[in-house]
Amino acid sequence: MGVVTPPKQDRSRVTRQRLLEAAVACLAEYGWAGSTVSVVAERAGVSRGAAQHHFPTREDLFTAAVEYVAEERSQALRTLPPQDRADRAAVVAALVDLYTGPLFRAALHLWVAASDEEQLRPRVTELEARVGRESHRIAVELLGADESVPGVRETVQGLLDMARGLGLATLLTDDSARRGRVVAQWAAILDATLGRP
Amino acid sequence: MGVVTPPKQDRSRVTRQRLLEAAVACLAEYGWAGSTVSVVAERAGVSRGAAQHHFPTREDLFTAAVEYVAEERSQALRTLPPQDRADRAAVVAALVDLYTGPLFRAALHLWVAASDEEQLRPRVTELEARVGRESHRIAVELLGADESVPGVRETVQGLLDMARGLGLATLLTDDSARRGRVVAQWAAILDATLGRP
Repeated sequence: MGVVTPPKQDRSRVTRQRLLEAAVACLAEYGWAGSTVSVVAERAGVSRGAAQHHFPTREDLFTAAVEYVAEERSQALRTLPPQDRADRAAVVAALVDLYTGPLFRAALHLWVAASDEEQLRPRVTELEARVGRESHRIAVELLGADESVPGVRETVQGLLDMARGLGLATLLTDDSARRGRVVAQWAAILDATLGRP
Repeated sequence: MGVVTPPKQDRSRVTRQRLLEAAVACLAEYGWAGSTVSVVAERAGVSRGAAQHHFPTREDLFTAAVEYVAEERSQALRTLPPQDRADRAAVVAALVDLYTGPLFRAALHLWVAASDEEQLRPRVTELEARVGRESHRIAVELLGADESVPGVRETVQGLLDMARGLGLATLLTDDSARRGRVVAQWAAILDATLGRP
């Protein structure tokens, strides 16, 4: 058999995806200051020109990258297996996992940079609001929470704030043992507050 | 009356304090990359040589600065008036306030920089552990929590993680209205979990 060349639009899609994944990895490893379009293009094995064809500005590349990976992780949560959905501690652990690992580390670098840079700030604020709404929607569904009941919305919001705080605690040290105990206890508190799923 | 010159050791203490306060303000405003010893010395109205006399390295200056302000804020919490201590929503709000404002913004810049810089990382990790233990101690006392009861320690830890997450949410936008509703709801949940204070 001869070598099959993928159609042009597929190759373009693959290039885009490689750039986005390289961008998140660079942000997580080098921070915003060390993450230029050139560094990302080199890591992705793509020319600088091709990178700029897909993403005209540095801001375009990095906000798209964080959004892409956030969407991938949300998708994984939406397909959580039924036996895990029935177990509230497993659901809380899965929600907290949204905020640990390289995606959260990358997003954190982008947020902190955006807090100082006027050019980045509105883009990241808008992205953060969009990703936050989507995380909330998924959490409500997975927890089987009824938001028409007063206080339930704020209960879920507080849980996601806790998940973000746990993500922050994991930035400098391996915090997984403590995190496991906090997740177990707060899953029990949610059972008492929301009722069993 | 003539002008009274303060004794030398008092002047030295005042200089040190001005440097520490300027360092936190610089970190919060310009981030780690923009915060050099020179920038801080200029803001404090102190010569670069005097700054280096007090803090030989950049790492010394900024870790001392974050610790100094954290200690000031802890002190303010320890002296919370009795009528506020009896009101759990006021206690939770005061704990959450530890993680909003310029101190948290400065600490966040330092944490994120430390996650990438080998030279800074052990210093900030050690500082963060020390400040975290102290916040936990104060929270236990203010909440009237009995940590000999299983789960209570993790309840308090989770609350402080939530407070850190709420601090993160305030980085890019004014989140105070939402934060107020989350604090009210979780204060009620803590009442049900820990019993009334």
